[in-house]
Amino acid sequence: MASGELTVRSVGIIGLGVVGGSVARALSARGIRVLGHDRDAATLLAARLAGVVHGTLDAGLAGLAEAEVVILAVPVAAASGVLEAARPHLAGARLVTDVGSTKGAIVASAERLGLGERFVGAHPMAGDHRAGWAASRPDLFEGARVYLSPTTCTAETALRTATALWTELGGVPERIDAAEHDRLLAWSSHLPQATATALALALRGTGVRRDALGPGGRDTTRLAASSPEMWTGIALENAEPLDDALAALEARIAELRASLRARDPAALAAYFDAAREWCAGTDESF
Amino acid sequence: MASGELTVRSVGIIGLGVVGGSVARALSARGIRVLGHDRDAATLLAARLAGVVHGTLDAGLAGLAEAEVVILAVPVAAASGVLEAARPHLAGARLVTDVGSTKGAIVASAERLGLGERFVGAHPMAGDHRAGWAASRPDLFEGARVYLSPTTCTAETALRTATALWTELGGVPERIDAAEHDRLLAWSSHLPQATATALALALRGTGVRRDALGPGGRDTTRLAASSPEMWTGIALENAEPLDDALAALEARIAELRASLRARDPAALAAYFDAAREWCAGTDESF
Repeated sequence: MASGELTVRSVGIIGLGVVGGSVARALSARGIRVLGHDRDAATLLAARLAGVVHGTLDAGLAGLAEAEVVILAVPVAAASGVLEAARPHLAGARLVTDVGSTKGAIVASAERLGLGERFVGAHPMAGDHRAGWAASRPDLFEGARVYLSPTTCTAETALRTATALWTELGGVPERIDAAEHDRLLAWSSHLPQATATALALALRGTGVRRDALGPGGRDTTRLAASSPEMWTGIALENAEPLDDALAALEARIAELRASLRARDPAALAAYFDAAREWCAGTDESF
Repeated sequence: MASGELTVRSVGIIGLGVVGGSVARALSARGIRVLGHDRDAATLLAARLAGVVHGTLDAGLAGLAEAEVVILAVPVAAASGVLEAARPHLAGARLVTDVGSTKGAIVASAERLGLGERFVGAHPMAGDHRAGWAASRPDLFEGARVYLSPTTCTAETALRTATALWTELGGVPERIDAAEHDRLLAWSSHLPQATATALALALRGTGVRRDALGPGGRDTTRLAASSPEMWTGIALENAEPLDDALAALEARIAELRASLRARDPAALAAYFDAAREWCAGTDESF
């Protein structure tokens, strides 16, 4: 995706958690004026005191009118409501965007609110199982894929600004249709999250503590520490594709159980081998 | 577990993969003479040239008689056969031990071979999804739990030597009955491995490449790169407890799918929340 230079002087960021806070830190470090809001007053104060947020917005979001770019960085279940609340204060915005893990609902909301020309949905493939401002860092997006999903009527200038924004933050923008994004992410992101969570609950159910795991087991369950609020929203918005992906996982588990019960060395070896080959097809350094 | 000082001058190590190679590097760095064997001639040569192995053993293992401690570091499916081959050459050994991920079968083999007094099964909870000598490193065991499973007639001196050995390597020995070890590990180690493998195969089946995953998805699938030979052996030896653990995982996945199909926010939030609480009960720094 071609990217021009980012020529923005002021950005409004609603939600200063790990992703929104990281965007704020990175833009602030580049000399861009950051207007920020967070529902948690202590977070907003911390961001202000850190010099990362230069102007604070109250819940009415009135001061947002000054921002040339507005970024929603709230849980996906809250995003459409926040976009509606921000709607009257977007006079100065040439780009309105978000960072959510699903794209269908927010893109539809933007169109419904008459923001289609100026809206580009964004989803940076970066984050941290730790949530909140305390986990934010300016280099969070370095090298990360950033999916960009335009509306049916996004203006070329808005898409160019979104591309320049994420490129400037170190990301690698990739354009994708919102519905296709959600189907893909059900597999590449939501399924791994659901798997780690189900595994954690299976271990919990039998009384195995996480500190009884080796390094590999800790890797496999790390995502289970992620924000329940965020993932409840994602799971609800993407319920059907995620259910399909979980059905595929169940089928592979059933296959393994059958091989175990048959004590079938060849089937087991083929099973582990196919998974290793899949892993090896990938550059670990990505 | 009380540990004395390790007073061993020569150790024989059969198998110089990531675990055996790491033991060899660590002991060699402490001035202990290491006799080594590997079925792969290039590995054995590399270890010799690196100065980590001071004497090489051929497949007959005759030179092993000089070793005071003998360590089997081969896949679990091969371990009993190797122990039998080594049996005539253990004249000088006051401790015979292994590093395998299951303990029931090898402990039974040691008893059957009349090695019960001198044998202590060991399982360091350390490793790497990369296999082989190239991935070995002397600090692999720093801070790692090391399960020690004696036979029904292990001598106190052998257990003391095993404890001193793993403590010297940086590990934290923990005594556990072999059968109990295998039941516990079916959950804490074999289930995470099987889960990562099943997830990798589900993704593979739908054409998602590993480089489409974010950092969390890569963590969750990392174990799928592990050695198929090693895991086929472990799965066969521990088939029944692992099958039970997989059944529990299936039940948790089914529960999630039911909540998704019901579009039930409260049930989903409780699900993700319980998993996060399980994670939070643990010291990440372990």
